[in-house]
Amino acid sequence: MKPDMNTTVAVITDTRHSLFALLKPVAIGDVTLAEGLWKSRQQINQGITIPGQYALLESTGRLDNFRRAAGKLDKPYQGFVYNDSDVYKWLEAASWSLISAPSAELNELVDNTIHLIGAAQRKDGYINTYFSVDKAAERWTNLQEKHELYCAGHLIQAAVAHYRATGDEKLLDVVIRLVDHIYSTFGPHQREATGGHPEIEMALVELYRTTHDSKYLDLAALFINRRGHSLLGGSEYLVDHVPLRSMSHLAGHAVRALYLCAGAADLALETGEAPIIEALNRLWSNMVHQQMYVTGAAGSRYEGEAFGAPYELPNARAYAETCAAIANVMWNWRMLQLQGEAQFADLFEWTLYNGVLPGISLDGRQYFYVNPLANDGSIRRQAWYPCACCPPNVSRTIAMFPGYIYSVSEGGIWVHLYASSVVNLELPNGRRLTLHQETSYPWDGHVTIEVQPEPVIQVAQDSLSDNKTFSIFLRLPGWLNDSQVVVKINGEAIGYPTHPGTYLEIHSAWQGGDRIEIDFPMEAHYLESHPLVLENTGRVAITRGPLVYCLEEADNQGLPLSQVMIDRSIQPLVEFQHSLLGGVVQLTHKAHLQSMDPEWEGRLYRPSIPKAHALSSTVTEVKSIPYFAWANRESGGMQVWTLFS
Amino acid sequence: MKPDMNTTVAVITDTRHSLFALLKPVAIGDVTLAEGLWKSRQQINQGITIPGQYALLESTGRLDNFRRAAGKLDKPYQGFVYNDSDVYKWLEAASWSLISAPSAELNELVDNTIHLIGAAQRKDGYINTYFSVDKAAERWTNLQEKHELYCAGHLIQAAVAHYRATGDEKLLDVVIRLVDHIYSTFGPHQREATGGHPEIEMALVELYRTTHDSKYLDLAALFINRRGHSLLGGSEYLVDHVPLRSMSHLAGHAVRALYLCAGAADLALETGEAPIIEALNRLWSNMVHQQMYVTGAAGSRYEGEAFGAPYELPNARAYAETCAAIANVMWNWRMLQLQGEAQFADLFEWTLYNGVLPGISLDGRQYFYVNPLANDGSIRRQAWYPCACCPPNVSRTIAMFPGYIYSVSEGGIWVHLYASSVVNLELPNGRRLTLHQETSYPWDGHVTIEVQPEPVIQVAQDSLSDNKTFSIFLRLPGWLNDSQVVVKINGEAIGYPTHPGTYLEIHSAWQGGDRIEIDFPMEAHYLESHPLVLENTGRVAITRGPLVYCLEEADNQGLPLSQVMIDRSIQPLVEFQHSLLGGVVQLTHKAHLQSMDPEWEGRLYRPSIPKAHALSSTVTEVKSIPYFAWANRESGGMQVWTLFS
Repeated sequence: MKPDMNTTVAVITDTRHSLFALLKPVAIGDVTLAEGLWKSRQQINQGITIPGQYALLESTGRLDNFRRAAGKLDKPYQGFVYNDSDVYKWLEAASWSLISAPSAELNELVDNTIHLIGAAQRKDGYINTYFSVDKAAERWTNLQEKHELYCAGHLIQAAVAHYRATGDEKLLDVVIRLVDHIYSTFGPHQREATGGHPEIEMALVELYRTTHDSKYLDLAALFINRRGHSLLGGSEYLVDHVPLRSMSHLAGHAVRALYLCAGAADLALETGEAPIIEALNRLWSNMVHQQMYVTGAAGSRYEGEAFGAPYELPNARAYAETCAAIANVMWNWRMLQLQGEAQFADLFEWTLYNGVLPGISLDGRQYFYVNPLANDGSIRRQAWYPCACCPPNVSRTIAMFPGYIYSVSEGGIWVHLYASSVVNLELPNGRRLTLHQETSYPWDGHVTIEVQPEPVIQVAQDSLSDNKTFSIFLRLPGWLNDSQVVVKINGEAIGYPTHPGTYLEIHSAWQGGDRIEIDFPMEAHYLESHPLVLENTGRVAITRGPLVYCLEEADNQGLPLSQVMIDRSIQPLVEFQHSLLGGVVQLTHKAHLQSMDPEWEGRLYRPSIPKAHALSSTVTEVKSIPYFAWANRESGGMQVWTLFS
Repeated sequence: MKPDMNTTVAVITDTRHSLFALLKPVAIGDVTLAEGLWKSRQQINQGITIPGQYALLESTGRLDNFRRAAGKLDKPYQGFVYNDSDVYKWLEAASWSLISAPSAELNELVDNTIHLIGAAQRKDGYINTYFSVDKAAERWTNLQEKHELYCAGHLIQAAVAHYRATGDEKLLDVVIRLVDHIYSTFGPHQREATGGHPEIEMALVELYRTTHDSKYLDLAALFINRRGHSLLGGSEYLVDHVPLRSMSHLAGHAVRALYLCAGAADLALETGEAPIIEALNRLWSNMVHQQMYVTGAAGSRYEGEAFGAPYELPNARAYAETCAAIANVMWNWRMLQLQGEAQFADLFEWTLYNGVLPGISLDGRQYFYVNPLANDGSIRRQAWYPCACCPPNVSRTIAMFPGYIYSVSEGGIWVHLYASSVVNLELPNGRRLTLHQETSYPWDGHVTIEVQPEPVIQVAQDSLSDNKTFSIFLRLPGWLNDSQVVVKINGEAIGYPTHPGTYLEIHSAWQGGDRIEIDFPMEAHYLESHPLVLENTGRVAITRGPLVYCLEEADNQGLPLSQVMIDRSIQPLVEFQHSLLGGVVQLTHKAHLQSMDPEWEGRLYRPSIPKAHALSSTVTEVKSIPYFAWANRESGGMQVWTLFS
């Protein structure tokens, strides 16, 4: 099957051929980042993280496992059974990264890795280095625990990324042989099974988008549809307790559950199946209303890395695996393409900043696996993990970022994210255009977008004659709450009836040099949480723009964070600090420092006092920083949810 | 080594020969319970629980494992590697139970079991059915995980109990051969190792008390002293991260940590070693001030069944294993004998009522393993568990209860617990006496104690000539807070300077028929918890006497418990309900039912509202029951910590 080169380099999810997707993503290569937070993250990813992870793949034996499988090395298999997937995720990150920064050096590492993978492939197409030598007889015998389909999914994604980034088909060819083997093993009328850890579903749909061979879509549907029928023992942990279409709420292992949702959204993007879309909307609402941290992170329980009960959202004991936040980002991206509703873009952006970015240090060298919302300084990022799912997952997400800023639709172009960049693309109606976006977002709310449509070439009796006009859809983020946004076109403020949490459509016969200016108010907000989130009683979370803030001991030496009561009645001082944490807006709040009642010394319980003691409180100042930037200085306390007065 | 029959039937811990124990326990056989809560529990234990557990030991293959080890049965080993310990704990419970209720039928079950154990013993003394047949070569190869010393500890305790209950030495003989084998394997100058799960330490000290062979005490000391030196890999979970004497706080697996403390307290009772006593007092304070549920339960984390961080005490997600509460009871009992301080008796009693009793259903047929302090009705007692450590542990604790009411000292007799009973014993000074205690405690606070000393037989130049007088030490429970207790002797109120949380010593030349009357005020109290216990912000726990109360849905149909705000300003109605839950005092509180702000519908976070909404609240009534009695009716919600106004 020849891949369709028309799709060229497109970010996952490429739905541009779907009949059902409302929005269609744009290719990563169509977007070039300019100076700003994300350009800086992209450069660190390319310059530090991706080479650093390659060295770790080598030093931890993950690449040796491929050499061993290829018969080039005689030593034992190293690490967990799913270690191949780290190589594949790295390869995907590196491939996307080659688009924005072609590099002969990185290209060589990528090609070497692809060569190793190819050499490790068995004659029948099978690839998994754990089962390739002494354990070959155990292939496909324990789908619950052994992650073979999960690893295959990551290899498929890597191959699609590499093909889209380079046009080179060699890894795609390897993958097609692998997937054809999987199809002949688990396809229609073959063994009725599904994998313990969802992942391959997203990958198979993407492979279908790339090859247009519908058997890959069919296989994705089979793996989704077989879940919940006790093929995995009915385990909630493995998300096999209920069929997806019947689920009322998310439960079990958070990454598994959210990868399944993202895969099912991919399936719905291609099939438009209403029961799946209804189930996904129901699960999304349930998560957002009962099971999600204020950072967009999900999966509160250490036990089973799982979703908890409704409103079970402990802070210091938050599990909140970085991979689960990435899964949430992937799922919301697909929901956005499918339905075009700003609520998905809101959560997509929010989780990207507050759930995913904390997963990597500012210097690009260390990673969080769990993400507490309060900490005494004991949980710190690590350079690597024996179970290293999160590090390359963050890396590939950052590498994909340019593809997340815009989508297109029949009507025009959708601006989801605000980040300095240039996009040059062709709208579905055939009109080519360039947008220059300039902003310091998320640090301030001023955004300018200059429109450069290419001239319409009028062709007699051309069906494209209606492409003189098109719409630009501007996302008005939900975090604005009730604030009104000023939007100017060529210097003139426009009146509009649109509310935050929607897209503002500006339909026009756009001319070269047309200029949109947007001013998002960037006040600090204080969020409170549902009364049943017991740990947050009497506490607020500070936010500004799309960012959740936190108090960190490094900025507040000597202040016991647990006794700080923020004075909500006074707007905090907002200062961009160039030399702080790579440049962040720091907030300075008026606060009271409540004295701890000395009677609590050496006591855990006491008779309840009829009226609250009027405890002495000192007026003080307290500083907060973006949550994503915590734990980048000396070790110390941190908290998101803070007492207030 | 002939055992010393002078000790006859004494409850663990029998410290009467210790030079260092301030108090000495009395034999279980010296105390006979009369009508009341504990007599009723004792009868259910004897009539229902102990026979029921025996049937389960049989039906789950635990006894078959012994038949297999004895070569009488050819089938695979069944269950977990530590399943022998369930048989031993049952045997201990049954043995203690034979004291208060001799039964030919139970005696036969006990004898059969002892016979099975003896038949399973190897020639060298070794007993463990998991390692007796095909796995014999793996004996003692994995002390971290395989529980051989733990199981041996429970067998020792069972043998001591059986010997004290019956005077029969046959199981003690078996055990002495086993322990001699252990001594020759792990004793001084032998293999330097210790067990992954403490338990044998308590047992070895008790065996020393029974046999007076100091090598058992030495071996207990070795197993304690070897911990914290990385023989178990330095694991915190296995409590091997720090030597006991250097520990600052309890960490790791809660049952392991608390069994170690109880064993170390036993060692200190025999050696008086100051560094151990100091460490135990430090750990006790730390637990009580930072790491203990209001029920006396400990070990808040599901992950590793472990202690959490300071103040980490979630309610719905409390782990609070029943065995950890039992361990806390055992530890406090030993601390009380060692130091005679009422704070240990307070926590001993409190944990017995609120941490241990919830572990078994009122009908004696079902058990809690984890003990949440709030629940939606999903966690219920089970008839048994694959890991069945808790059920026979509760049973043996109830069977030992008569031995927990009193201690003696040089000066007289100490009344720790209030429960209708008759005690007949000889004081250390040789004076025999009988106390008749009558009370409906814990339901009301009236207690009468009638003293019947046997006449002093005057012997010329007898050193016992000073035994005409002795003291009765009455515990004034710490839960009284500031309430004053009325104590009358022969109808006359006495003035005294003693405060709650101490013992009131009444020294007298007691005459037959002397009558002490005590009236403990039994108002309901409301406890609040330290501000750093985040889930309890704005909440109180209801207590009355030694009992923690809870709201249960069965008594409060239609009331959403999470919205109930108890009015602390009005004392609740106190009613003993004969037909409720086997007879309990139920409380009826005035309360407000706070409306849930409708804006929370479908939201988890929202901008913080400057002033709290004046939400409509309905005045209502809400009923509470003792926490130990929850989950004995239809399934439904329960909560200990409740909002208040």
